[in-house]
Amino acid sequence: MIILTRKDLDELFKAEIAVNSVREAFKLNYQKKINQPQRLVMSVKGNWWGLMPSSTDYSFVTKIVNVIPENKERGLPSVQGVVILMSPDSGEVLAIIDGTTLTAIRTAAASVLSTEIAINGRNIGNLGIIGAGTEAYYHAKLALEYFKVQKIYISARKSHFELARKIGGEATDLETLLKNSDIIFATTSSNVPVVLGKYLKDVFHVSSIGAHTPDSREIDDDTIVKVKSYIVDSLEAVSKESGDYIIPKQRGLLENKMIKELGEIIDKGIKVERPSLFKTVGIAAEDNVTAHIAYKEASKRGIGVNVSI
Amino acid sequence: MIILTRKDLDELFKAEIAVNSVREAFKLNYQKKINQPQRLVMSVKGNWWGLMPSSTDYSFVTKIVNVIPENKERGLPSVQGVVILMSPDSGEVLAIIDGTTLTAIRTAAASVLSTEIAINGRNIGNLGIIGAGTEAYYHAKLALEYFKVQKIYISARKSHFELARKIGGEATDLETLLKNSDIIFATTSSNVPVVLGKYLKDVFHVSSIGAHTPDSREIDDDTIVKVKSYIVDSLEAVSKESGDYIIPKQRGLLENKMIKELGEIIDKGIKVERPSLFKTVGIAAEDNVTAHIAYKEASKRGIGVNVSI
Repeated sequence: MIILTRKDLDELFKAEIAVNSVREAFKLNYQKKINQPQRLVMSVKGNWWGLMPSSTDYSFVTKIVNVIPENKERGLPSVQGVVILMSPDSGEVLAIIDGTTLTAIRTAAASVLSTEIAINGRNIGNLGIIGAGTEAYYHAKLALEYFKVQKIYISARKSHFELARKIGGEATDLETLLKNSDIIFATTSSNVPVVLGKYLKDVFHVSSIGAHTPDSREIDDDTIVKVKSYIVDSLEAVSKESGDYIIPKQRGLLENKMIKELGEIIDKGIKVERPSLFKTVGIAAEDNVTAHIAYKEASKRGIGVNVSI
Repeated sequence: MIILTRKDLDELFKAEIAVNSVREAFKLNYQKKINQPQRLVMSVKGNWWGLMPSSTDYSFVTKIVNVIPENKERGLPSVQGVVILMSPDSGEVLAIIDGTTLTAIRTAAASVLSTEIAINGRNIGNLGIIGAGTEAYYHAKLALEYFKVQKIYISARKSHFELARKIGGEATDLETLLKNSDIIFATTSSNVPVVLGKYLKDVFHVSSIGAHTPDSREIDDDTIVKVKSYIVDSLEAVSKESGDYIIPKQRGLLENKMIKELGEIIDKGIKVERPSLFKTVGIAAEDNVTAHIAYKEASKRGIGVNVSI
């Protein structure tokens, strides 16, 4: 059994590997080759806890994740998780993985992948990242490794100067970011839109990973009206969970657009027309495939602490 | 985060600690101080996998367990599990524990506890153990540590000579065991009764941990008819899961008996009249409390490998 920490995952997941892992995950998900039962949700001391199991032919993965807002006062992340990889054949535990970091990496990789598909290349022009937390950091890290980026803008309510310094970007206000970016990654916990269509260029791609409840928004209606392609990770998931899909749909704003799952686009090689939007709430398939790839790579390269149980 | 292996658990769980842990677990369960949602069950490659989360004020525990019969050919246990202990306050992972061994220890501890309560003491006379697997081994180990035992008999389809040698008991046939034992622990995977009432002494206590499906039996009707007290770990669980409870109940054999959960007996100090039977299919509360105690003891005594995630 291998223990994989944040440091190990940083070493393992060069952008190329991370992006290919989620490419595989979305494809398997579309092909229904992943067994993902309804996740089990519990309330513990008033906080949200979830158990997400999934299996493929070669991996049984359980992610246990919690959202504990008061962790900020403890100096701990407010979203924490652990991922347990087991063999679906022998049932043995193969790896215990830092779920917080794995989630941040697979989510960033999905945004990067959607961008590559939308622009059909790797020369992305200016990149704007909204938010400055762990998710924002991994979005910047992977994008800078994977793409040729002209300039990178960071905007957030706080810490954007810090993140901009760390990754060599420019901290700026939201309006400047929106006006100058060709690609936008929205990684906020905001309930109200931060991507405002009136400021956007004529051609853009947005990846939005926030707005996880039916009444919260990260993307405004003006943006939705402009996009030609509305890509999602899972139609079932966004239809239940994200206000960015549910509300525009109710308002009839999604008619005459291409609406597709990323997995179908990959599987069938469908062309994406910009302006485009990728909306993702996260699916177990991403955790499953990245956990399995992390384990395989770590075993091959001797990364991680080996312990027997 | 501490990793606790079989060896660590053997060192941690002296019988006294193990028995007190499950005593606490059954009491908390009866007092409804444990949050245990319906377990999540999956079929993976034709095998049974289960996820069992539970939480108390001081522990969030998830047990992931599988039953893989073809593991015998791999030289691996056919039932394997891992237990993840997390803080219900901060959400951090505190311990990763060998679930196979923890399950065997808590199950044996429950049998021992039921015996102590049934005989109201620790001088148990002759002990008969049916079965010779991991569960049987821990039943013998804990009983020999906890009780004054006159003689210990082992009977199984195979390996009983080996186990008898290992623990200093006598390997024998089933009839001899049943005729001579004051206390009987049935730890088999049999679908048909192995505890046969016609051979039993007038006064006995049986703990039965097998027969996990509605149509399988480990205890025959003759035994059921003889017992005055029918003790269970959870009325809800045995009513759904065990033929040893479901079938006699349908046949009207449970009338005029005291039928109680072990937790109620402990909580209220109810007297148990022999002949008595304890039927257990296992409840998440046992895993939860033993995992938490293992972690506390291991931290205090410096047992287990410390790794950070």
